[in-house]
Amino acid sequence: MTFPVVGMVGGGQLARMTHEAGIPLGIRFKLLSDSSRDSAALVAGEVVVGDHRDLDTLRAFAKGCDVITFDHEHVPTEHLRALEADGIAVRPGPDALVHAQDKALMRARLTALGVPCPRHRVVEDPADVRRFAETEAGGFPVVLKTARGGYDGKGVWVVGSAEEAERVTAPFLAGVPVLAEEKVDFVRELAANVVRSPHGQAVAYPVVESVQVDGVCDTVIAPAPGLPAATAVAAQELALTIARELEVTGHLAVELFETADGRVLVNELAMRPHNSGHWTQDGAVTSQFANHVRAVLDLPLGDPRPRAPWTVMANVLGGDFPDMYPAYLHCMARDPGLKIHMYGKDVKPGRKVGHVTTYGDDLADVRERARHAADYLRGIIDE
Amino acid sequence: MTFPVVGMVGGGQLARMTHEAGIPLGIRFKLLSDSSRDSAALVAGEVVVGDHRDLDTLRAFAKGCDVITFDHEHVPTEHLRALEADGIAVRPGPDALVHAQDKALMRARLTALGVPCPRHRVVEDPADVRRFAETEAGGFPVVLKTARGGYDGKGVWVVGSAEEAERVTAPFLAGVPVLAEEKVDFVRELAANVVRSPHGQAVAYPVVESVQVDGVCDTVIAPAPGLPAATAVAAQELALTIARELEVTGHLAVELFETADGRVLVNELAMRPHNSGHWTQDGAVTSQFANHVRAVLDLPLGDPRPRAPWTVMANVLGGDFPDMYPAYLHCMARDPGLKIHMYGKDVKPGRKVGHVTTYGDDLADVRERARHAADYLRGIIDE
Repeated sequence: MTFPVVGMVGGGQLARMTHEAGIPLGIRFKLLSDSSRDSAALVAGEVVVGDHRDLDTLRAFAKGCDVITFDHEHVPTEHLRALEADGIAVRPGPDALVHAQDKALMRARLTALGVPCPRHRVVEDPADVRRFAETEAGGFPVVLKTARGGYDGKGVWVVGSAEEAERVTAPFLAGVPVLAEEKVDFVRELAANVVRSPHGQAVAYPVVESVQVDGVCDTVIAPAPGLPAATAVAAQELALTIARELEVTGHLAVELFETADGRVLVNELAMRPHNSGHWTQDGAVTSQFANHVRAVLDLPLGDPRPRAPWTVMANVLGGDFPDMYPAYLHCMARDPGLKIHMYGKDVKPGRKVGHVTTYGDDLADVRERARHAADYLRGIIDE
Repeated sequence: MTFPVVGMVGGGQLARMTHEAGIPLGIRFKLLSDSSRDSAALVAGEVVVGDHRDLDTLRAFAKGCDVITFDHEHVPTEHLRALEADGIAVRPGPDALVHAQDKALMRARLTALGVPCPRHRVVEDPADVRRFAETEAGGFPVVLKTARGGYDGKGVWVVGSAEEAERVTAPFLAGVPVLAEEKVDFVRELAANVVRSPHGQAVAYPVVESVQVDGVCDTVIAPAPGLPAATAVAAQELALTIARELEVTGHLAVELFETADGRVLVNELAMRPHNSGHWTQDGAVTSQFANHVRAVLDLPLGDPRPRAPWTVMANVLGGDFPDMYPAYLHCMARDPGLKIHMYGKDVKPGRKVGHVTTYGDDLADVRERARHAADYLRGIIDE
């Protein structure tokens, strides 16, 4: 058969779950991983260990792949352009992906498209931060973000005063562009996830609520409870617009703030399978991982509709106990319908080492089951 | 983490799908495969290529595995006993598995347990076949089966007369025990699939209808349409009894004949994930593959209940076109809810190279969608 080969750069859990989703599709999956101990490298059949920042490594890896896609945003944009110049299909392409790599570029482009964003400005020094706060953001607190390289709350500071901004000097000293943004007074965070293929087909998943704790995604509820239909459709349309205008191929996660007056503002973009879409593995007809593979291969996309009235995903973070196996066994015994997804990673406090998913008709019950299992696995409850 | 290692012997599609199911469970999966090109070897992370009939190979493979389980029944029983004597956990164990390996032993044991079976007798030569037909089976036709080694219609002959039995001489000449059975006048075939763990927990999947074409499973409908509840429960109880009495660990498929007068008779046993359970990947809360892994590790079992009123699985057999990719693309475009499972195998006419699954509320629609996709992929329809 001439089934194609998907090459994925990055060996984290997103690649692990993409490999899992690719198995029934019959595609070959090749992985470029930093280490043979990475989450995806433990389970994939064809693993190249190498540095994704090295162009020669990328070029050698790309040979024999029909398309290159990503577990993370850390491949240098210029290397992606070099691969494209070699004739390699890179999806999402560098001109799209740069908007997930560089928050300053993202804000400029989305604003030009008329997409609602928090007020923002690239700042050079603490004096700039004070000016931005006083003249544009309606005062402190404001949010400072390194334009490149941050994730899961890293590279992000909330500063409550000009003095505090003075103390956050590391990003300025590092010479990386820093983005200042108003601190949006949101009622909750949402995510609108869509998948788009090169020939322009796109599908939109139900808009979800994403509950963050300490800047890390903690729980996702699908669909977002109580979200007015008009807001949900507007959020989906906004995500589809961004995917189309930026020519994204593959999965696009648009993280959103929902404000008290019913508006949505774009927080972040991710152009890969995303934590806010993990619920789709058990909760949707076609998972984000399967649709990402289908999209980067320009195959027809699968049905994104939910399979149950409510699906809840809760991240399993590492706790104080390095061995989760006894807790895992307990959770399986307590709830035979629980869907556990472990990443094969060593447990470190606060590290994402897995997630659990539950679904059903009663949101309170579905939520309690997911919450209980995640907390029990982490070791913060013992019943 | 101390997550365990499951070693699976045999590199076919059952191992491929078991690996897929093991990824979210966080277990390590090691494969002993005849070839690096086998279906499961293409996607598994830890593959040993070697001969499952060689005890030294098995012993070396078993080192570092917490449990050994199987994609097929072809490992010699004496090797399994040797592994057990070495202290290896073999699940299902040889004393159970021998009943799936040897049809004569299986018939004797089930009959002793009072499990309804077709009338049967081990025969030595064509004269024995004639005696069995005339004195026990109510006349010809009768079914001849090699006691060991048959599958998918291979090693099975239906003989309509004593003269025809004379012509089926190969198994007698080969010196393998041959089992003669009455040809049951069944209305359809069913399968009762259960999973049992070493500590004795067991779950039963809904009883399904299995439609065979030329001795090969073609379509499975879950649950079996129109099956009286009492018959379904009786079939499940029968499968649970067999699992308990034979001390099966892992998945047990009990293939059944349903007779016009509402009885069920056991046709075959398989102690591994089975074609009649593939529907569970998309149609049940916990798939047969995930529950097989959980069972052989003695983990609590997952919920076997269906997720939709109807689920239909249709096998994709190889046709005249070696390249299925264009047809695959067409099927995805036609039906975004279609679940395709390809095995990565080269297409040969009649070979099982994948399956498709559909589910929904309307059986006629669900069945038509699965049938259409399987036929289109095989190339026997072009619209």
